[in-house]
Amino acid sequence: MANNRVVIALGGNALGKDVEEQKEAVARTAKVIVDLAEQGLDLIITHGNGPQVGMIQNAMDNLVVMHQNYKQIPLPTCVAMSQGYIGIDLQNAIKYELFSRGLDKKVSTILSQVEVDGNDPAFQNPSKPIGRFLTKEEAEENEANGVHCVEDAGRGYRVVVASPMPKRIRELETIKTLVNAGHIVITCGGGGIPVASENGKLVGTNAVIDKDNASSLLAAQMGADYLIILTAVEKVAINFGKENQEWLSDLTVEQAKQYIAEEQFAKGSMLPKIEAAIRFAESGQGRRTLITLLDKAADGIAGKTGTVIHL
Amino acid sequence: MANNRVVIALGGNALGKDVEEQKEAVARTAKVIVDLAEQGLDLIITHGNGPQVGMIQNAMDNLVVMHQNYKQIPLPTCVAMSQGYIGIDLQNAIKYELFSRGLDKKVSTILSQVEVDGNDPAFQNPSKPIGRFLTKEEAEENEANGVHCVEDAGRGYRVVVASPMPKRIRELETIKTLVNAGHIVITCGGGGIPVASENGKLVGTNAVIDKDNASSLLAAQMGADYLIILTAVEKVAINFGKENQEWLSDLTVEQAKQYIAEEQFAKGSMLPKIEAAIRFAESGQGRRTLITLLDKAADGIAGKTGTVIHL
Repeated sequence: MANNRVVIALGGNALGKDVEEQKEAVARTAKVIVDLAEQGLDLIITHGNGPQVGMIQNAMDNLVVMHQNYKQIPLPTCVAMSQGYIGIDLQNAIKYELFSRGLDKKVSTILSQVEVDGNDPAFQNPSKPIGRFLTKEEAEENEANGVHCVEDAGRGYRVVVASPMPKRIRELETIKTLVNAGHIVITCGGGGIPVASENGKLVGTNAVIDKDNASSLLAAQMGADYLIILTAVEKVAINFGKENQEWLSDLTVEQAKQYIAEEQFAKGSMLPKIEAAIRFAESGQGRRTLITLLDKAADGIAGKTGTVIHL
Repeated sequence: MANNRVVIALGGNALGKDVEEQKEAVARTAKVIVDLAEQGLDLIITHGNGPQVGMIQNAMDNLVVMHQNYKQIPLPTCVAMSQGYIGIDLQNAIKYELFSRGLDKKVSTILSQVEVDGNDPAFQNPSKPIGRFLTKEEAEENEANGVHCVEDAGRGYRVVVASPMPKRIRELETIKTLVNAGHIVITCGGGGIPVASENGKLVGTNAVIDKDNASSLLAAQMGADYLIILTAVEKVAINFGKENQEWLSDLTVEQAKQYIAEEQFAKGSMLPKIEAAIRFAESGQGRRTLITLLDKAADGIAGKTGTVIHL
């Protein structure tokens, strides 16, 4: 690698689905992260927030129904809250893992906003699932109330909101300052708090930014050489779940685009990861994305497993 | 001043009580903060979170009651969420005010934890009010359920939790790094996420740290010369509300201790501010605290109003 900067995007299994699972999950995640830190890599950690922001929004919506004196809390504010909810446990777990190994590295979590174009066509076509899985009946009730829902990869129904493309990591200078000072930085939680600029004023937008897209942009803007997307599979596959299923160790951008055209990758699952990897590869020379399981990250970096996407 | 570092502790009126009031309140607050930034001061901003963390905890508690599959969210996690909820609006308001004046200063908000002693006697005597004001009937119902409530300075009843003394600002190095890089830093929101160290592991504790106490410790550990506590009165008074009420412009630590002995300052209101000011004054030479109204901050720094507490 030309430099040591690595952005690690953590998926749902790195965090757990509720506050109790989270404490246990982040302890395991921290071991993986500190293993990489011990290799001398400068780490910037991003994470998803699907179940968490869904829970928070659910709680806030209920409160408004129950108590007339409370006001509706907008989704971007819920995302900000989820960065606190997740970030602090993740930070403490990493810090404790460092401490356990006698390492004195700093870990910082910053509130982070990602700017989108207020005219992004995604706002006309909500597609990003948030919150818990719903029954078909619950989904129909939501639709009747104007809240869009979709069937999600065979796992049930979920509420969907717009998922516009990230354009700018607003706190980039803060992240750089801390990484340069030797900190592991947790940022862009949940893809970042979605904001649009209105004549210089940042205004929250009703959207969730895909955390892999945000991580890809962050990695590019940080000048990182490596983006690691940790997820629920060890490698990317084509013909997934079929007789001729094939695991991929190495995938060029050209091949990846071909497979996307063949609809090889599931929407809302592997597809956005591959797209994020393509964007990162195309953002600068030598930029590679590793997709693998959380506990295979070190093996993946060593070239032993996972799928690497590159130009 | 020996250096330009100033910690500004914002009270409730700087933030508003709900998400709509907050957007308006922080716009006004931002003007005051940027006025001070334009004087060349390095600013570290702290803030309270009473109504906000109360709302969040209320929402989270209701969710557990309504949905058996959700877990109870501990108070420190609610504090972390409140740092996101408040911090992002405050940061954006300051950033926009800077932008409006053609200034390019960075503003960063960090999740911040304040360490307390797990054996602090405060845990035996919950005293810090959180959440909305309750009727006497609601307070009695809470007490029956083992949740402590107190009458709060004539304004109604509130739930109380332990308010241990802050011992260590855990993210001090992060704050220093960013302040040294020229950032306005928002930190220690709600007095900081309360944690205790258990054999090197930071564990959240069921407490709320007084934001003025945390700000006093932060100011001392940052080597600041000035702590500004912005609150609902222009000056500190003795014999408050009586015929012989007297507004104070200047108060030595010695006088302040005498007035505390005379019970001149309301518990949970002016008393913790005076105590925080005393601690700051005693932490190092030349350290002064200004207590005044939000919109009198600049006049106060210029010596025209407010109460200054010093050795």
